Amino acid sequence: MTRGEGCGDAILTDILRTVDELNGLKDVDAILEAILLEARKLTGADAGTIFVVRDGRLAFGYVNNDTLFPEGRDGSVSPEVYQSYTLPLDGTSLVGHVALTGQPLLIDDAYALSPDLPYRFNKSFDEQTGYRTRSLLTLPIKSIDGHLMGVMQLINARGPDGLPAPFAPSLAAYLPIFAQHAAAAIERGRMTRELVLRMVRMAELRDPSETGAHVQRVGAYAAEIYHSWALKRKVPLKTIKRQKDLLRIAAMLHDVGKVGVSDAILKKPERLTGDEFATMQWHTVYGARLFDTSLGDLDELCRDIALRHHERWAGGGYPGQIDDRGEDPPDGVRLGEALTGEAIPLAARITALADVYDALSSRRTYKNPWPEDRVLDLIRRESGRHFDPEVVEAFFAIQDIIRAIRARYPDPMD
Amino acid sequence: MTRGEGCGDAILTDILRTVDELNGLKDVDAILEAILLEARKLTGADAGTIFVVRDGRLAFGYVNNDTLFPEGRDGSVSPEVYQSYTLPLDGTSLVGHVALTGQPLLIDDAYALSPDLPYRFNKSFDEQTGYRTRSLLTLPIKSIDGHLMGVMQLINARGPDGLPAPFAPSLAAYLPIFAQHAAAAIERGRMTRELVLRMVRMAELRDPSETGAHVQRVGAYAAEIYHSWALKRKVPLKTIKRQKDLLRIAAMLHDVGKVGVSDAILKKPERLTGDEFATMQWHTVYGARLFDTSLGDLDELCRDIALRHHERWAGGGYPGQIDDRGEDPPDGVRLGEALTGEAIPLAARITALADVYDALSSRRTYKNPWPEDRVLDLIRRESGRHFDPEVVEAFFAIQDIIRAIRARYPDPMD
Repeated sequence: MTRGEGCGDAILTDILRTVDELNGLKDVDAILEAILLEARKLTGADAGTIFVVRDGRLAFGYVNNDTLFPEGRDGSVSPEVYQSYTLPLDGTSLVGHVALTGQPLLIDDAYALSPDLPYRFNKSFDEQTGYRTRSLLTLPIKSIDGHLMGVMQLINARGPDGLPAPFAPSLAAYLPIFAQHAAAAIERGRMTRELVLRMVRMAELRDPSETGAHVQRVGAYAAEIYHSWALKRKVPLKTIKRQKDLLRIAAMLHDVGKVGVSDAILKKPERLTGDEFATMQWHTVYGARLFDTSLGDLDELCRDIALRHHERWAGGGYPGQIDDRGEDPPDGVRLGEALTGEAIPLAARITALADVYDALSSRRTYKNPWPEDRVLDLIRRESGRHFDPEVVEAFFAIQDIIRAIRARYPDPMD
Repeated sequence: MTRGEGCGDAILTDILRTVDELNGLKDVDAILEAILLEARKLTGADAGTIFVVRDGRLAFGYVNNDTLFPEGRDGSVSPEVYQSYTLPLDGTSLVGHVALTGQPLLIDDAYALSPDLPYRFNKSFDEQTGYRTRSLLTLPIKSIDGHLMGVMQLINARGPDGLPAPFAPSLAAYLPIFAQHAAAAIERGRMTRELVLRMVRMAELRDPSETGAHVQRVGAYAAEIYHSWALKRKVPLKTIKRQKDLLRIAAMLHDVGKVGVSDAILKKPERLTGDEFATMQWHTVYGARLFDTSLGDLDELCRDIALRHHERWAGGGYPGQIDDRGEDPPDGVRLGEALTGEAIPLAARITALADVYDALSSRRTYKNPWPEDRVLDLIRRESGRHFDPEVVEAFFAIQDIIRAIRARYPDPMD
């Protein structure tokens, strides 16, 4: 029995297992990635793309292509997953047509479409890359109430022999069930992302440098640096995926503790005095206090990062050895002795680098963005001082991805 | 074909539909309710209870009993669903035994258990209520990684003739699949609740009266007042469930905009001056600005409530007619003309009552809790003035539920 030709029971069991997989994930990016991967497993597709509806257009959501960028084989990520472009919601493209009609479309050869059809296949991607698109299964992702959430396009089914083949027509009956669950998962992931961004927006009410774009970049940088680090350390792929999902959320929340620092200090335009800076440092402790352990792993990560993202690999950071459940800072009292090296949790070491990299490469009210060379020089120089050398190495190994992330989440003012 | 005896395919389809149902819900209480309802539908059980693991004990989560409190028939809620008690995680109770062993337990007559068994059936509930428990299906709710999330107990299966019958043994094979999805749904619901409480904790860093217990009470009061109002208005039960789920979350977030008000005003121990009070009123606008429309219905509710929970039915509230996307308050400038009556969104009218009721019945640094009579007198007097008379009526119709909620979320200091 080949994939896509099983009896209903087997496919339903497969879909249930897959839905399970999705339900274990929290952030919307991890969910989009898993949906595409699972849909490709269910159908045997070589490649695929997901689009999500945003502001009345179809926004690129995620891409997989085993032939061109074999993510999943060695477990590495391709920068293409951070692309950012949109399609209009009209019937001239295949994807747009499926979005408008709400019906799946099964095509055996994308190059042999009748010119009488209202939609046509866009060959530009194939022409740029040398890829040859043949069979296509394009299906709408609709929420329970029938609302269009996005469109998934699966490309080049492979037969049992691994060679290109058409998609089995029976899939068109079962995949909508999967798509409906995918829609619910996307909705949840977006909600989680939005709730996290709400917390950031609350912090932004007090500190305008805490913007949504900044924290989404820091979250994505941290997630990808970890992925790069973990591949090198031969961490099992399953663990990588789970940790990466949590780390992205937790890294976004690294500075929410600033909400506890008084206006007089947070909004002071001049340089802070020694005492004021000592008070400002308590944002790490306030942040940590926001996260107890009721969310399990995620909370622990959030605490680690909020509390420790200003520690330095070679020492000299803060807050150091402190009981973060303690009282508010007495005037002028310094925090404990700094942590060093691996005593600083990995997630915090990674977020420290992601945060500094983003602050330097971005505009602030008091500075222009630094040129990339200068930023990378500083990070290289600080390897073993401010930053964990292994984390710095993992960061330099994925510069193409880092740049793709920077392009995906631009500052509104830039 | 009777329920519980279908072929695997039909049951799997049923489970998939049910999982869908769960995925559409956001708050943990709505999810627990739906899990129990769906499990009873799948098995034909007359009653059931869910326990969730919390702090190393089994905490009561939700209860259904068609015979004793027929929730779901006329759609009303019984105060029992807000009970609060815990069982130890040990093998002497049926529920504890299933939690420890991780295996489902199928019992045909709870009164005929061999005394040699390590666990026994606790008859005290039956003795108090006159209910006769016969068949029991007790099963663990485990997360994907095998972690115990809770235990579900289904009581008194009914045969096709509606009469008591044993649970079909085949259910023991399929229900664990459902339970695994239920576990994922509970995990998500808890995460959503926790993320919401994080936002509240951020507000609490600035205004200590915004506590977790306060907002959970306000959320539950608002949800149940709405339910009572909507039943009277003959709103379809499906709409009620969805709106109630969202309203509970949105009402919890009514005051998060306080994070935007300066310390000097928020923490002033004395009475605010006119200008200071005018500035304080902007917490409604700051709150509304935190919610754009990217979360759809939930965001809209959050905006409505944050912006409008200080409006008054007969007028005289704030912020009145304003563009909430506007600029920060110029010194001493008043907000717009107050809204009145149904121009105030229903969710805000309901939350206004829930918030005032809770503030009066609770301890504050500057006041003791008012006795219940005095609180209810004031609310009755303000019907048609501060509060929507129909909302007041819906509130008085469910005083048993309101009291059960107050008992479920006590202030830590009380």
